[in-house]
Amino acid sequence: MYPRTFESLIESLQKLPGVGRKTAERYAFIILEWSDDEINDFISSFSKIKTNIKKCKICGNISEGEICEICKDDTRDKSIVCVVENPKDIIAMEKTGEYKGLYHVLNGVISINKGILPDSLTIDKLIKRIDDSIDEVIIALNPSLEGETTTLYIMKMLESYPIKVTKIAYGIPVGGHLDYADEMTLIKALKGRTNVNE
Amino acid sequence: MYPRTFESLIESLQKLPGVGRKTAERYAFIILEWSDDEINDFISSFSKIKTNIKKCKICGNISEGEICEICKDDTRDKSIVCVVENPKDIIAMEKTGEYKGLYHVLNGVISINKGILPDSLTIDKLIKRIDDSIDEVIIALNPSLEGETTTLYIMKMLESYPIKVTKIAYGIPVGGHLDYADEMTLIKALKGRTNVNE
Repeated sequence: MYPRTFESLIESLQKLPGVGRKTAERYAFIILEWSDDEINDFISSFSKIKTNIKKCKICGNISEGEICEICKDDTRDKSIVCVVENPKDIIAMEKTGEYKGLYHVLNGVISINKGILPDSLTIDKLIKRIDDSIDEVIIALNPSLEGETTTLYIMKMLESYPIKVTKIAYGIPVGGHLDYADEMTLIKALKGRTNVNE
Repeated sequence: MYPRTFESLIESLQKLPGVGRKTAERYAFIILEWSDDEINDFISSFSKIKTNIKKCKICGNISEGEICEICKDDTRDKSIVCVVENPKDIIAMEKTGEYKGLYHVLNGVISINKGILPDSLTIDKLIKRIDDSIDEVIIALNPSLEGETTTLYIMKMLESYPIKVTKIAYGIPVGGHLDYADEMTLIKALKGRTNVNE
């Protein structure tokens, strides 16, 4: 229907996650209006991505070199490792400005449904990172069935090590309302209650 | 936050229509997982788009050459021209398999709000196309305020020409229900009623 080049652009765009035929067509028509400079910028970002972006050899974060900026940073507290599902979560944590330790990217969570078993994650790599310099491992996974299964699994694996293992609190989000919270969140908020009169 | 190359990919992806920071990040993380072949296919579609895709000199449809496949096609009925807003509408019309005439792409519709005046559309080019070979102009614009304003404007401009000027019917869509139709659609369906007992 469309000219061949246009059709192949649409097909390429459909490879993006959640992009169907209609959205790809919409993108393609807009790209058609772009200036040469805009097209060239786009192409140059794409072509550099494979060569320039690697996974950090230590923590698995995305990185421009072998070791990421966080692992390289001498001002970070190297006694704490925060375990996250993917590099996006590192960005979320970094935005808080609260956490100054290191990270460990699991590359997913255990999911029987999706066939993701502990072996396909970087849990063994995490265990290998544990040495005298590490005092605490914070597990910061999403409060989903998979996230919690993975949290339990990691806690079990780290049981025999002389380190503190913690997990982040689940509960009512700031700005949220009790009466709008789903039951599971409320149960977690209750279970995670802390003493205020001590 | 992210490595520079990754950040610039995210920024490039945000230039796509309706793609915000979060979606661009999601796209970028998936692209990171692509094979070299996939990346190269993507780049090649992009780089070809500017050089290979032009607007048809006659009707304004997107085309791989100076003249589009439809205008070039000798089996098409060259006595009818269907006026549409953009090339996507041509695809929609072609899918019906009902229409065998030519097209004329306006590149938009008159919109005072958006500052789109008749001069910025290809209406004058349409007028110039009218000659003895053309018997009918079908105006096939969307049933919006802008679409109808443009339809009226074009009808006015073609008034003095000895040709038939028609517009497509607006009304209840096939599979639609009267009680779910909005008032404007119902009014249009009423106004566009046709005799069945003639």
